[in-house]
Amino acid sequence: MAYSTLNLETIIAYVRNHEQSAQYLNPNSDLEVQEIGDGNLNLVWRVFERENRSRSILLKQGLPYLRAAGESWPLSPDRARFEAQALELQHRFASGLIPKPYWFDADMLVNAMEDLTEHQVLRRPMMAGHQFVGLGETIGKFCAKVLFGTSDFAMRPDEKRDLQSQFRNSELCKITEDLIFTEPYMNQAWHGLEIRNRFNPIIEADVTHMQHDSDLKAQVAALKYRFMTHAEALIHGDLHTGSIMARVGTAPDETPDIRVIDPEFAFFGPIGFDLGAFIANLFLSSASHLAHSKTVEARAAYRSYLYDQARACWQAFTTEFMTQFAATNSPSWTSQDFQAMFLRDVLRDLTGFAGAKMIRRIVGFAHVADLEGIANLEHRAHCEAKALELGRKLIMHHSRINQFEDVIDLALEILPVDTQ
Amino acid sequence: MAYSTLNLETIIAYVRNHEQSAQYLNPNSDLEVQEIGDGNLNLVWRVFERENRSRSILLKQGLPYLRAAGESWPLSPDRARFEAQALELQHRFASGLIPKPYWFDADMLVNAMEDLTEHQVLRRPMMAGHQFVGLGETIGKFCAKVLFGTSDFAMRPDEKRDLQSQFRNSELCKITEDLIFTEPYMNQAWHGLEIRNRFNPIIEADVTHMQHDSDLKAQVAALKYRFMTHAEALIHGDLHTGSIMARVGTAPDETPDIRVIDPEFAFFGPIGFDLGAFIANLFLSSASHLAHSKTVEARAAYRSYLYDQARACWQAFTTEFMTQFAATNSPSWTSQDFQAMFLRDVLRDLTGFAGAKMIRRIVGFAHVADLEGIANLEHRAHCEAKALELGRKLIMHHSRINQFEDVIDLALEILPVDTQ
Repeated sequence: MAYSTLNLETIIAYVRNHEQSAQYLNPNSDLEVQEIGDGNLNLVWRVFERENRSRSILLKQGLPYLRAAGESWPLSPDRARFEAQALELQHRFASGLIPKPYWFDADMLVNAMEDLTEHQVLRRPMMAGHQFVGLGETIGKFCAKVLFGTSDFAMRPDEKRDLQSQFRNSELCKITEDLIFTEPYMNQAWHGLEIRNRFNPIIEADVTHMQHDSDLKAQVAALKYRFMTHAEALIHGDLHTGSIMARVGTAPDETPDIRVIDPEFAFFGPIGFDLGAFIANLFLSSASHLAHSKTVEARAAYRSYLYDQARACWQAFTTEFMTQFAATNSPSWTSQDFQAMFLRDVLRDLTGFAGAKMIRRIVGFAHVADLEGIANLEHRAHCEAKALELGRKLIMHHSRINQFEDVIDLALEILPVDTQ
Repeated sequence: MAYSTLNLETIIAYVRNHEQSAQYLNPNSDLEVQEIGDGNLNLVWRVFERENRSRSILLKQGLPYLRAAGESWPLSPDRARFEAQALELQHRFASGLIPKPYWFDADMLVNAMEDLTEHQVLRRPMMAGHQFVGLGETIGKFCAKVLFGTSDFAMRPDEKRDLQSQFRNSELCKITEDLIFTEPYMNQAWHGLEIRNRFNPIIEADVTHMQHDSDLKAQVAALKYRFMTHAEALIHGDLHTGSIMARVGTAPDETPDIRVIDPEFAFFGPIGFDLGAFIANLFLSSASHLAHSKTVEARAAYRSYLYDQARACWQAFTTEFMTQFAATNSPSWTSQDFQAMFLRDVLRDLTGFAGAKMIRRIVGFAHVADLEGIANLEHRAHCEAKALELGRKLIMHHSRINQFEDVIDLALEILPVDTQ
């Protein structure tokens, strides 16, 4: 079947005709469809039985352009294949921590998967101060399982190289290279390179200052180079709090079911990148709670929660990694001194990447609702300036970090729990 | 045409029938063939006109097994394609510093190229104390041109990723991973892994001591991990003094024509690896001249020459790299602080890799004639113990090296110019 964009009229016929759908839905029942896409790159629908709404599937179709920018920003729909392959590998190593993949239709660029009807994306509940028990631990474990499983510690080198060449996700890598590591640090066009920065005009002086900070720019170039050359494992590539879902309505002390979604940026990159993205988002949330929390006490409590999640993430990551290291058969990786050096390097990388991820959300093209959602521009600027400062500190200190508490200390210096 | 091994009987007909040969030879003339292969992986012939021996071509055919080990070590003949692709890229960025490639026959796995009749491989003349003017400078320049040209500093990321996936040279990478980074550090079989170490029995105590040195083994594991994951540029992969030829009969003060050959190990790896291999071979030569030099004065002169070549190599490499950096259009790489950090990291990598390359030639499967050629086992052991000690030092110090002279200082400590 040739590619065509599905719509509310055609999607049910598509599902009924797809042979694998009968495993998940009764194709002869009355089916309903609901469009739920809010992503940048895809159309997303839920198709369910009218009589039994819990019997449903989620379908995601790749668009040939970046939705946020309209058809003026064309994108190869190959990324639907990258997402399918990434879901398959993530499911192999961390099943239960992503939506279960059902099928991939290479002609129609449709990924069908488990529909998480009781889950919601974390970002907005986090703006409202909701605490998800076990969040950091789950993400740390997810990262460790997928990253170890697809690394040279677990895979045969030829198998890894073959996978790596399947994941030549150049187009989406270029988005990261440009929007995270290049454009935020430029205040004027350069040899025809378009600069798509957007920022709150109130922080313009901070932004300009940052764009002239040559020490910072050298460190960011080094991080970009590592992103482009360190092919360590299959990274998610966009692991922010908008790429994580949790089941709502769980009792407050119960760990909710947490899932990582949307791996279309996946490729073989540096192991610290996903951890850095997640921790950057915790710190952006911390900055935004200067505005979102109604009281000093509420803010203190939420920041404590966020920093605990960051700690738990690193703790769970290292615990899982060490467990898997202990089971390796390769004589090279059994050295405990090597393992400690390796984890220290991941920690340094994650710190630098976290800083770059924070800065791009304030100065670059794509922002986060945590900060964009603060209506008062002065309040917003206050939060943004703090986040920018922390981002810079993380980058400037990253190569000297020796333990995770050093990262938390940097956050506490600028976004403390109990004062301001 | 289906693959078949060429031989002295069939090669002339093969050349006459190949349409491109007429550019280099008169196919109607009387042709002669000479087998000159002494490599491990290939058959190599020179085909020339009987009446005009300077009109000649070199043909190299891939064998489906490792020649040194016989048919018991099968190898995919894919490496003939890797060599063809590597020659093409090296020729693009550093023409004149390799034999000019003429054609690649994918069916017969034949690479035809310029025949360097007046050149000889460096290793044996170096054992005899011959000084090649400009050696270090040429190799430094060769490395810089090819490595910069195939790096993210010069290539579009998608172009580099496509090339990288063409160079999935897993089989030859595995030889490096096993023979350089794994087996020399093991003194017994491990989970079915075969250990192919060979060493002079007189140094057994040194070898055993090294194989129990957990600090060293942790650093070697880190180097191996970098070799496997840092996909920076198209490295030659086996740049020892047996992979370099120079025209003999040049006047003593004239720079001889120097060419790098045999890139079948090429793949996208760490930029410091080739420089490390070359410098390791200079240092191995230095160690071997404890025996090869007839007098203390001759040894002092040769060691001075070798260390000067090492310095000139790094100097030429950095000069060429900085020149190319200065011409880059990418805003990320223009930061001089970044460039300095990058070159410092290359220097550290090359130091570590040089150490690993030295050790493998003494303890591992494949040795070098510089040391194997010392008939007296006691004298040989003395040289080998020194080389082993320097290899260890280079590895243990590599992450703290800040300037190239630090590397020379380590060499001078163990293999001084003017004493012993």
